[in-house]
Amino acid sequence: MATTWVPNVSPTSDFSLANLPFGIITTPSDPLPHAAVAIGTSVLDLKALSTSPLFTDLFPSLPPQIFSHPTLNPFAALGRPTHRAVRAALQSLLSTGDSRLRDDPALRAAALLPLAQVKSHLPMAVGDYTDFYAGYHHAFAVGAMFRGPGAELQPNYTRLPVGYHGRASSIVVSGTLIRRPVGQFVLDPAEGPVVGPSRRVDFEVELGCFVARGNEMGEAVAVGEAEEYVFGYVLLNDWSARDVQAWEYVPLGPFNSKNFGTTVSPWVVLADALEPFRVKGVENPGGEVLEYLRGREDGVFDIGLEVDLTTPEGDTTTISRTTSRHLMWSFPQMIAHHTLGGCPLRTGDLLGSGTISGPGGAEERGCLSEMTQGGKKEVLLYGMDARTFLKDGDTITIRGACGEPGARVGFGECRGRIYSAEQRR
Amino acid sequence: MATTWVPNVSPTSDFSLANLPFGIITTPSDPLPHAAVAIGTSVLDLKALSTSPLFTDLFPSLPPQIFSHPTLNPFAALGRPTHRAVRAALQSLLSTGDSRLRDDPALRAAALLPLAQVKSHLPMAVGDYTDFYAGYHHAFAVGAMFRGPGAELQPNYTRLPVGYHGRASSIVVSGTLIRRPVGQFVLDPAEGPVVGPSRRVDFEVELGCFVARGNEMGEAVAVGEAEEYVFGYVLLNDWSARDVQAWEYVPLGPFNSKNFGTTVSPWVVLADALEPFRVKGVENPGGEVLEYLRGREDGVFDIGLEVDLTTPEGDTTTISRTTSRHLMWSFPQMIAHHTLGGCPLRTGDLLGSGTISGPGGAEERGCLSEMTQGGKKEVLLYGMDARTFLKDGDTITIRGACGEPGARVGFGECRGRIYSAEQRR
Repeated sequence: MATTWVPNVSPTSDFSLANLPFGIITTPSDPLPHAAVAIGTSVLDLKALSTSPLFTDLFPSLPPQIFSHPTLNPFAALGRPTHRAVRAALQSLLSTGDSRLRDDPALRAAALLPLAQVKSHLPMAVGDYTDFYAGYHHAFAVGAMFRGPGAELQPNYTRLPVGYHGRASSIVVSGTLIRRPVGQFVLDPAEGPVVGPSRRVDFEVELGCFVARGNEMGEAVAVGEAEEYVFGYVLLNDWSARDVQAWEYVPLGPFNSKNFGTTVSPWVVLADALEPFRVKGVENPGGEVLEYLRGREDGVFDIGLEVDLTTPEGDTTTISRTTSRHLMWSFPQMIAHHTLGGCPLRTGDLLGSGTISGPGGAEERGCLSEMTQGGKKEVLLYGMDARTFLKDGDTITIRGACGEPGARVGFGECRGRIYSAEQRR
Repeated sequence: MATTWVPNVSPTSDFSLANLPFGIITTPSDPLPHAAVAIGTSVLDLKALSTSPLFTDLFPSLPPQIFSHPTLNPFAALGRPTHRAVRAALQSLLSTGDSRLRDDPALRAAALLPLAQVKSHLPMAVGDYTDFYAGYHHAFAVGAMFRGPGAELQPNYTRLPVGYHGRASSIVVSGTLIRRPVGQFVLDPAEGPVVGPSRRVDFEVELGCFVARGNEMGEAVAVGEAEEYVFGYVLLNDWSARDVQAWEYVPLGPFNSKNFGTTVSPWVVLADALEPFRVKGVENPGGEVLEYLRGREDGVFDIGLEVDLTTPEGDTTTISRTTSRHLMWSFPQMIAHHTLGGCPLRTGDLLGSGTISGPGGAEERGCLSEMTQGGKKEVLLYGMDARTFLKDGDTITIRGACGEPGARVGFGECRGRIYSAEQRR
């Protein structure tokens, strides 16, 4: 792997030259949201770069304003071969030995900025958000809690990637505060439901997938072509109010228990950057799937995932370590199923994987509900602290990365803090 | 009620002077989608009107381009007091005795066009679509089919307006063809699921509500203020594949069974136009609801609804007659519940009422599944024809209206035809 001339790129950085994730930023000198790539502790401001003749040298066929939009949608819509070519050209530009930007002090000053000085924004305009349930061990554990041994998985679980339509309007970028939702739930079945701040606010560790290309309404996407519809990936926290969920979800699925906020990491790791990390997912215990769902064997990625809980007092504990190889359905399978009946996907649509948990103990589970067996056991934190569900002021930070030191492909942070339902904003 | 000088406004027209619904059209001389109101067999082209000095006389505080956008969202976002004032000014302009437009032949020729010469488009850009389940008799009948006598309603049904997130990308305007979805379903439980064109394609009669104003994320809308968040109403057909639905919907709700198409009528009846038709909805058998859901008594509207089925041979039978007074939850209650946990609504969001059925026989039910008791009994059509579910080439047309002849407030048609899953488009 090539090395970079960009200073201060630590071997442990998520944003290596092998990664170059895309995001939307504002900077001290440019308050209009626009596109950038992250490398080490810097960003390359692609809008600033586009003011230089170097831009047309690098990307002769790109519209010059493509990175000046407030979302990555116009770039994503150009399709995966273009994303591949642009990323490769940027990798060249930033490689040790390439002098074009390195030795242009004025352009460097304008376009290569400290990451700490820029503000990240939601990278895509999301038309529709769909959340799947593809984490096998999560589905199994939740089923065991609700239905007991022998009936953990619904009959459809192994036959199709179960999913539901989520709420696009409450998708926010990492760092956005999340208000503890008020909701309706049952404390005492004899008393009926009450209204109040949820007492069981939880997180869910997921991988999010942004759609590059849309399909026409009425036309399905074949599983073998679905990779071409993927722009890239982010980490996703599907905040959940478990007390609200238990009361509301029959028969039409989760609603207010999920629509108060969904946090995504700001840097979109392009699909090509993850290609080296393909693995086989969880083997489907139901055997061979129907033909329209038969994709390549190594359909998922082995991304190491970690969850930190930081208390209001500032103490941080890593409460979970897992990997995205625990998915049983791949995103191409989800796309093939989603479009089977003709549902149109559009550029910028977001697909969530569903909660990702390992098969073992609490320390590899992707949500508190699993870790605590529905609130029955505590998760121990640094010092003498413990949790069943989240307290006001708690921060959840999800990190994810794969690859060797010096060539790590990581996501940075997907972070959110819960604030009190009573607090005015 | 005032009368209009516009020619050919029949007393039985849905689009009386008392209505003036808003839509998005293209015309022979202007291929860019823009706003209009319908009256009788004509439309008043508001973009064409805006080129005249009369426009600033009528609407001194409106941005001059407000009706030149391809959706009604910018107008809707101005809020209900503005919608009220604009509608009142247009009612004056079109009243018998107002000569400003009537006696201006050049402007009349440019702005008053035959409805038959314009093409209607989707009136709003829909960010998120939420479908509720507020039709009491529908929920009761479906529950009776699934769970039997004594367990018709889930315990939460009378305590909160049950709803789920729908798919925004497949919302289409009346007249758009709907491809029969291919889906996964179970024919023989011993054999497991199969894939193929759905054999149980159904319609659902609903009322749709477009959101005018959004709320901030984290901030709930009080039920008493929710009317101010409503722009207007349309008829909605929530096409459904019942075989797909039965197999996929546990535990996360309907997905591919619903996301292949949702049809809305093109003319948005403003909230104010329906005010005279308020009635009390179905009494909640669970008694008093929680305080955040206590809205005004007359929270729903008495809109007469009719469903026509037209066969591929062209024979039409009116298969259902019902009314929207069969809703148990009002749209303000749905909005209060939707935002209770802080979910942000945005201008243009669409809320569906859920299927509207009367309490009686098949002839007042809002979907074929109810009419046929899940496919067990046939609905008889004109001639010797009959249906359990829809055949390729069948057209469903929903009509809705209230009010006396000469002052009817109606929706026009919400129409869609199913075409074969095998047919290329």
